[in-house]
Amino acid sequence: MTASPPDASVRRPNPTAAILIIGDEILSGRTREANAHHLAVELTKVGIDLREIRVVADDHAAIGAAVNALRVGYTHVFTSGGIGPTHDDITADAVAAAFGVPIGIREDARAALSALYAARGVSLSEAQWRMARVPDGARLIEVLTGAPGFSVENVHVLAGVPSIFQEMVAALLPRLEQGTPRTVRELRFEIGEGRIAAPLRALAADYPDLAMGSYPWAAGGVHGTNIVIKGQDAARVDAAVARLEGALSTR
Amino acid sequence: MTASPPDASVRRPNPTAAILIIGDEILSGRTREANAHHLAVELTKVGIDLREIRVVADDHAAIGAAVNALRVGYTHVFTSGGIGPTHDDITADAVAAAFGVPIGIREDARAALSALYAARGVSLSEAQWRMARVPDGARLIEVLTGAPGFSVENVHVLAGVPSIFQEMVAALLPRLEQGTPRTVRELRFEIGEGRIAAPLRALAADYPDLAMGSYPWAAGGVHGTNIVIKGQDAARVDAAVARLEGALSTR
Repeated sequence: MTASPPDASVRRPNPTAAILIIGDEILSGRTREANAHHLAVELTKVGIDLREIRVVADDHAAIGAAVNALRVGYTHVFTSGGIGPTHDDITADAVAAAFGVPIGIREDARAALSALYAARGVSLSEAQWRMARVPDGARLIEVLTGAPGFSVENVHVLAGVPSIFQEMVAALLPRLEQGTPRTVRELRFEIGEGRIAAPLRALAADYPDLAMGSYPWAAGGVHGTNIVIKGQDAARVDAAVARLEGALSTR
Repeated sequence: MTASPPDASVRRPNPTAAILIIGDEILSGRTREANAHHLAVELTKVGIDLREIRVVADDHAAIGAAVNALRVGYTHVFTSGGIGPTHDDITADAVAAAFGVPIGIREDARAALSALYAARGVSLSEAQWRMARVPDGARLIEVLTGAPGFSVENVHVLAGVPSIFQEMVAALLPRLEQGTPRTVRELRFEIGEGRIAAPLRALAADYPDLAMGSYPWAAGGVHGTNIVIKGQDAARVDAAVARLEGALSTR
């Protein structure tokens, strides 16, 4: 549930975000996606509301269409994958095409790559030089771990390898405008969802500023429900929690 | 990479699919998504090409917009989540609205739910009767595990609880038209991606009917690369594998 808080006019709304995973191997089921979960946790911590995740194929048109759909709908778009040296690394080109800007080798990216590989004692292959190609006007992400990440306006292009993705997220998030992290309370009841539905529905009607989710579970023959209550106003969250606990303890 | 095979005129193209996860708890980072991976594996087995995964919030407008975007783009759309008895279970209503059809209690769904709960020795609450609401013209999925799943045209609405989701997938897939599973070969090289890029690019140019992916890894100070080669023609896949192995063994 994503009801608008009644005090939205006085409280500045949080920035929003989408994640775009470039992922043939996710779609084929060979690999489990991990970067979206990591970034979801980090965004929640800093009050940026993640609204959508998309996984598309390693396909120029599919990446470009998704970038253009998402960048107008959300404050930020974070992409994962497809910025290495091989023929299937087409994210930078697709992002440049989506913005309608040229792409070419950037001297600062080339110098940074060169320094990194020199420190490892290896020289770059021609294919690796391609990783220094970034769209015109892009800002490099201030971490270099093998492939340069960059931002074009509100689209942030990150690596797919999880350890590198995480370093880039850590470097990038502090320079984005942050919001108000929500207060989140989770309650666990050994009561089936069907018996919780009515009091929860009444509670949700009285607290339209809070998001309330209901998640059934079953373990050892017991049917139970986890309830998650979230909101920007901690006192309201606490009041709703107290009321739900009271309503269910007397049933 | 998703190049069209050169023999597409003689080989019937595989059906395509998208998965839509209704998932506030995925977006907040509280929960790791698991259903998409399971379905990706099952679709790959039966030759249905999964092209996109989306995760959206538990929000009527967001679900409806995604359903309408995906159902015209792919042969099938599979949704996960939001069909239980609580106020945040809005998927059935959002799908009905997306198709512009009414929604109401269906007698066959109600009878099946009633029988299931009677077998458990419990009666249904009013909230649980709501689970028998399905869009007009929907076909029920022939498995009943607490909440009815259903199909409206090419949109298949499944539960979010993983064990129930998996039962519904097992019941549903055999009645969908299936395609030709691709032959997939994975090669592991202890060679960095930068050194594999050039021969792989040449190979991809010569085998436009095959999809080739390159996935760098690092372990114990060794930088290596996994190469995945896929296609509908097993002999072509084998030939490409042999050529790549030959090219890299002589370097």
